[in-house]
Amino acid sequence: MADVITPRSQDYSQWYLDVVRNAKLADYSPVRGCMIIRPTGYALWENMRDVLDRMFKETGHENAYFPVFIPESFLAREAEHVEGFAKECAIVTHSRLKVTDEGELIPDPESKLEENLIVRPTSETIIWDTYSKWVQSWRDLPILMNQWANVVRWEMRTRLFLRTMEFLWQEGHTAHATQEEAVEETVRMLGVYTKFAEEYMAVPVIQGVKTPSERFAGAVETYCIEALMQDGKALQAGTSHFLGQNFGKAFNCQFQNQNNELEYVWGTSWGVSTRLIGALIMVHSDDQGLVLPPRLAPTQLVIVPIYRKEEEKATVLEAAERIERELKTAGVRVKLDARESQRPGWKFNEYEVQGVPLRIAIGPRDVQNGEVELARRDTRSKETVPQAGLTQHVTNLLETIQQDLFNRALAYREANTHRVDSYDEFKEILDTKGGFILAHWDGTAETEARIKDETKATIRCIPLERELEPGKDMVTGKPSAGRVIFARAY
Amino acid sequence: MADVITPRSQDYSQWYLDVVRNAKLADYSPVRGCMIIRPTGYALWENMRDVLDRMFKETGHENAYFPVFIPESFLAREAEHVEGFAKECAIVTHSRLKVTDEGELIPDPESKLEENLIVRPTSETIIWDTYSKWVQSWRDLPILMNQWANVVRWEMRTRLFLRTMEFLWQEGHTAHATQEEAVEETVRMLGVYTKFAEEYMAVPVIQGVKTPSERFAGAVETYCIEALMQDGKALQAGTSHFLGQNFGKAFNCQFQNQNNELEYVWGTSWGVSTRLIGALIMVHSDDQGLVLPPRLAPTQLVIVPIYRKEEEKATVLEAAERIERELKTAGVRVKLDARESQRPGWKFNEYEVQGVPLRIAIGPRDVQNGEVELARRDTRSKETVPQAGLTQHVTNLLETIQQDLFNRALAYREANTHRVDSYDEFKEILDTKGGFILAHWDGTAETEARIKDETKATIRCIPLERELEPGKDMVTGKPSAGRVIFARAY
Repeated sequence: MADVITPRSQDYSQWYLDVVRNAKLADYSPVRGCMIIRPTGYALWENMRDVLDRMFKETGHENAYFPVFIPESFLAREAEHVEGFAKECAIVTHSRLKVTDEGELIPDPESKLEENLIVRPTSETIIWDTYSKWVQSWRDLPILMNQWANVVRWEMRTRLFLRTMEFLWQEGHTAHATQEEAVEETVRMLGVYTKFAEEYMAVPVIQGVKTPSERFAGAVETYCIEALMQDGKALQAGTSHFLGQNFGKAFNCQFQNQNNELEYVWGTSWGVSTRLIGALIMVHSDDQGLVLPPRLAPTQLVIVPIYRKEEEKATVLEAAERIERELKTAGVRVKLDARESQRPGWKFNEYEVQGVPLRIAIGPRDVQNGEVELARRDTRSKETVPQAGLTQHVTNLLETIQQDLFNRALAYREANTHRVDSYDEFKEILDTKGGFILAHWDGTAETEARIKDETKATIRCIPLERELEPGKDMVTGKPSAGRVIFARAY
Repeated sequence: MADVITPRSQDYSQWYLDVVRNAKLADYSPVRGCMIIRPTGYALWENMRDVLDRMFKETGHENAYFPVFIPESFLAREAEHVEGFAKECAIVTHSRLKVTDEGELIPDPESKLEENLIVRPTSETIIWDTYSKWVQSWRDLPILMNQWANVVRWEMRTRLFLRTMEFLWQEGHTAHATQEEAVEETVRMLGVYTKFAEEYMAVPVIQGVKTPSERFAGAVETYCIEALMQDGKALQAGTSHFLGQNFGKAFNCQFQNQNNELEYVWGTSWGVSTRLIGALIMVHSDDQGLVLPPRLAPTQLVIVPIYRKEEEKATVLEAAERIERELKTAGVRVKLDARESQRPGWKFNEYEVQGVPLRIAIGPRDVQNGEVELARRDTRSKETVPQAGLTQHVTNLLETIQQDLFNRALAYREANTHRVDSYDEFKEILDTKGGFILAHWDGTAETEARIKDETKATIRCIPLERELEPGKDMVTGKPSAGRVIFARAY
């Protein structure tokens, strides 16, 4: 494992990997493309999960759990869905291993399954099959469910958190009596994701709608939030799909409405995944390692006691422990690292690399003066502050850091959002600066594909809040009603 | 779905299924042997998970996440382990589906994997492979990790919660420098499981050690807790394994000790699963449906307002809402069911079937008298109590119910534990009463197997707290140092 972090300016991809591995967030596993989420990474995911879970419950959703396996035939029921997922899936074909006469371990041919099973890439099919059994009348609607689960997509090029064969996520699946209600739900959950990204991850996002070619396989409309990374590439941070009656029809999920007529049920699905951890890293971290927003950081503050002589130890530790107690009581996630096996300088570096937002160092003179040294991870600035009133100071400062991180990311995004009217300028900006590019598009899949082929940039979204500004497509010159957001993306 | 619950005396298996389905805890899925955990069942699991997770963290463990797939070759590394798990596993052999010229969906032969992957039945192999990379010196030990995950074992005969192809569980995996420390950890976690079973599930358990033939595949010693169900059958409620250096050796996981010598790492693993929900149901529930211990019940108390006339509605609802607020403030998980689409009698039945521990009914006369009707689910007794002091009364009563459920289960177990010295009596008790049978055993696998063949009873455990009482094996007459516990088991 690298102890050195490659500077961003030198090799952004390597920097990312160095940050992840030095902060002990995750490792590659012996199974190609699957990751091991280490305790620090998992504690971060737990904090994200807990906040999201509370937000889902506050908006009326319940958790449930559906099987990890999807019958092969289910995938085929919705035409676009199978098209989207059949190409990258893990297929279970046998249920028993046997040892051959040569001592080799092989799937026992006698255990071949009658119907193959797919390890879920997403659960619309099995859930809509279930809903078709649960729903008879309008009284059974809406169903507002969410599932926390692992899913598998057979990706060829993987990168820790950002794109892995297996990842952890949540998938909401709701069923409604009317189109209006389903659209409302789709937009509501996009709002929940936006709030989470901005207020907890401190990552500003743009809400929008995907173009038909970027839609979820089986959706009528895909809403998304898009964030900008420090290398000028975009990352889709969450999606919320209005499914129309597509899965209702594919799984014959009908209900009797208040006029006693049979109708197909309307649906939505929405999800975010461990991919968000990748976004968090790429938006805030620096060449010294991870930077975490205080609201999600597993440890918000670390206390490092400093002493040389044995007689100093007792007083320093006593003060450190008192401060630890006071902060803990105030709800700060604090850790006192009193290990003697490591020197203070080593600890300073360790917690910097791990992205702990605040560090308190306290030595004999600090004890005498009733002070501590308080260091911010994000700005790497230090100040000497009195122990009196420290808890209040710390809790305020954590909120300040949270806000500063958001503001910094927002300023970066604004500085790297370009309004462009010519295709030449478009290509030049992509190659020199990157970022979000607001440009006119004629609304055709052909032009979209051509731009993607020629520049690797995709339409990230048609922003929900966009000015109606008549213009001309920068490539074809055909009319356009407003700008869309282009970017190269993860 | 059955609305009627079959009495236990008539058909215990059907009763169990009726309780599960009427309480909407779980359903079978279209994938054979896999279950759908419905919101009520999942909320119960969340409560169990949260308590256990806190207990694991209090004992120094961290959560992590390892891949769902195990390379086929990993399973083969530990001889007993592969023997134990190869016969019932889901094998992934391909990574892509394709449509044939006939329009059939098949695994694309070109996507055949170089090495097959097994959907994890348990994670010792992949975790010990990882530990072998993480551990170099005694300073890297101990590693105290836990994982919450889904696992798959290809069971032929399944039963909701008790035995399903996929289930949810936690698996702890720890690595230690010494045998002593690993044994200590194994016993500590057995203690955690015992505390959880008795103090939260209200299920009394017996701690013991498995015989070699019932050991976990790859363990040196398997510790377990055993509970007795209402039909006189035993259920293994949790296991904690001392792995010795078996996985350390199989995965070449060595460390440099303080004398600079290389040693193999010592290990433990321990787990409980959604199976516990099955135990919970079978220990406490009755012919009216589910009975839940208050500490784990998703809803601890339901308030049902009762009124006929419109002018009564406002005052009744006002009182009901005030009571709801007060109970919520006191930390009671309370639900006010003010739906007008269902009648009070229907609601009474619904929450009884769902096992909500307490019910408050409040009508116009109760409002006038400053009283409510309070009904216990476990005893089905009712009392009229004053609204003044209600919150305190309810919180006390919830604790009383918790204790009563445990005491009742303990009394049942004691009444159904038999000391037996002859094989004839042994067989007779098994066939007439069931329960735990304390009998002498000569310590051989042969006798154990013979008894199992002839009676379907197995040795549940050699209790940790057993009197040393020299005796004779009831079958062979050979000497025995003390009694072991026999039972037929789930």
